[in-house]
Amino acid sequence: MARETTPIAITMGDPAGVGPELCLRALVAPEVADCRPVVFGDAGLLARVAQAARVPGPPAVCTLAEWRACPVSERPLVVDCAAIAPEAVAPGQVSAACGRAAYTYIETAIAEALAGRVAGVATAPINKESLHRAGVPYPGHTEIFAALTGTLRYCMMLTSEEITVSFATTHAAIAKVSERLTTERVLEVITLTAEAMARLRGRPPVIGVCGLNPHAGEDGLFGDEEGRVIVPAIAQARALGLQVEGPLPPDAAFLPARRERTDAYVAMYHDQGHIPFKLLAFDTGVNVTLGLPIVRTSVDHGTAFDIAWQGLARVNSLLEAIRTAARLAEGRP
Amino acid sequence: MARETTPIAITMGDPAGVGPELCLRALVAPEVADCRPVVFGDAGLLARVAQAARVPGPPAVCTLAEWRACPVSERPLVVDCAAIAPEAVAPGQVSAACGRAAYTYIETAIAEALAGRVAGVATAPINKESLHRAGVPYPGHTEIFAALTGTLRYCMMLTSEEITVSFATTHAAIAKVSERLTTERVLEVITLTAEAMARLRGRPPVIGVCGLNPHAGEDGLFGDEEGRVIVPAIAQARALGLQVEGPLPPDAAFLPARRERTDAYVAMYHDQGHIPFKLLAFDTGVNVTLGLPIVRTSVDHGTAFDIAWQGLARVNSLLEAIRTAARLAEGRP
Repeated sequence: MARETTPIAITMGDPAGVGPELCLRALVAPEVADCRPVVFGDAGLLARVAQAARVPGPPAVCTLAEWRACPVSERPLVVDCAAIAPEAVAPGQVSAACGRAAYTYIETAIAEALAGRVAGVATAPINKESLHRAGVPYPGHTEIFAALTGTLRYCMMLTSEEITVSFATTHAAIAKVSERLTTERVLEVITLTAEAMARLRGRPPVIGVCGLNPHAGEDGLFGDEEGRVIVPAIAQARALGLQVEGPLPPDAAFLPARRERTDAYVAMYHDQGHIPFKLLAFDTGVNVTLGLPIVRTSVDHGTAFDIAWQGLARVNSLLEAIRTAARLAEGRP
Repeated sequence: MARETTPIAITMGDPAGVGPELCLRALVAPEVADCRPVVFGDAGLLARVAQAARVPGPPAVCTLAEWRACPVSERPLVVDCAAIAPEAVAPGQVSAACGRAAYTYIETAIAEALAGRVAGVATAPINKESLHRAGVPYPGHTEIFAALTGTLRYCMMLTSEEITVSFATTHAAIAKVSERLTTERVLEVITLTAEAMARLRGRPPVIGVCGLNPHAGEDGLFGDEEGRVIVPAIAQARALGLQVEGPLPPDAAFLPARRERTDAYVAMYHDQGHIPFKLLAFDTGVNVTLGLPIVRTSVDHGTAFDIAWQGLARVNSLLEAIRTAARLAEGRP
């Protein structure tokens, strides 16, 4: 199996955030030792953060050239991208330099994943404003991964033990959601989700597709998107052999009886999925980008600038992101 | 205080549903004895259901004329509206006769409340289809109460120990929500909610107003309704002396830290409030119509035709509806 021999990359995220200390802790966490984590970041900055946050420093360090020449390691490893001078970083501060460095780690990890030297990438959090100041033309990780891998059809999935949700739309105004929903898009998200869940569960999954409107439209009484867009997508997904239920009335979709028999939901818009996900899986969630040619997972929290470099951030979400990346990578070609 | 002398009316709901057995159980429930419940229903039907569901029959019965002549009782009372013949009812069946009878109980209880002979009305569930077959021109309770009391400005509130939410819009398609939101409407719902919560809590409440869009629009990036509609409503509410927070990012609004300091939320659309409410307060919720000249509460479940007359339905929600009606009625003029 791929993950037994091929490491999982962790991108260090924004140097001024909680990413560096979380990476250091993940490198020595027994829970992810068998995922063989390799951090793509800055060794000097990690050494500085280790002292400030009182966490163990990098166990082993190599340059990017050394890594590429020999991408294996006996010990948990930091690949030093040398993207920023440690003394240039102030914890908790937005800066173009940090945005640029964070982008470099991501760019590098994506190249390594495309080359097959890592089996997947788990990303630590970045700061949108720092990225913007650095002139990076993407609002976030997902768009960077899509652009640098040439991917047009992708979607976001949040996963946890309690609940898993994929999204037909994400950062869209509520007034724009209806016009962005097409049968093709809903079908795409159903199939991407079913494929990922089959890999995570090791069996054909049951996908629950939410309606868009109250009571799933109540037979067209409040909106026609269910009949016009969602029902045809479900029919096409079933014709492909997938187990799909819906359109589910959104307010009943996430109740325990339904959750028990649903491996993953497809939500039509951001808060339809984020509200129940955060209530049920606060701070244990993992964000996965589906549809990429490589595996990409992410923590479900931000840079937490207010507690950066203090050793206070919880590492659960990053560990889950690493484990999920390894599970998604298993058995991939 | 009004409720010590004036009873709370319970409407029996659809005769073919779980309403009759729940009414019988509520009449003898010690938890609501001090609310002095009086059921407006059919005595013959209740006697039949008592036998079928193996619950105690009506403790005392009078005609509507007798009740009006002397609206007090030593014992829990059924006011016999004589709206349907018991033998005409088949449990779990939609029928015009049942819809018509259910409407009669509601109409009668509203008249009694307007006349001051009951302090409030708690409603058992009705069947929309039966109501429709009976030619009743309203889709549900809320519209009936609004029409028969001549109320134009009202809103729905769901309340429970865990969470309370009012709604700026309810049965609107997602695509129509934005155009239905006005500053006037949001302000109206904030003030109605604050007034009700002040009565329920006995102190000035804190109201949390949700944004409409993901991340509450992120400064206009995904939709402008927050700045254009919601922020002005919040400002006007604060100018009235109310404690109002928001616009809250919807996916974080319902997390424990925020819930602890929020007495009630204002949701912009049906599922924004119903999804968290059902997750946090499944089957203990009470539905309240705010803005009416009378107190009206309701169970938060349907007629449950599949288990009607079997003694299986849980009475919690009706008991909570009665207690909430009594608390809302306290101190009213």
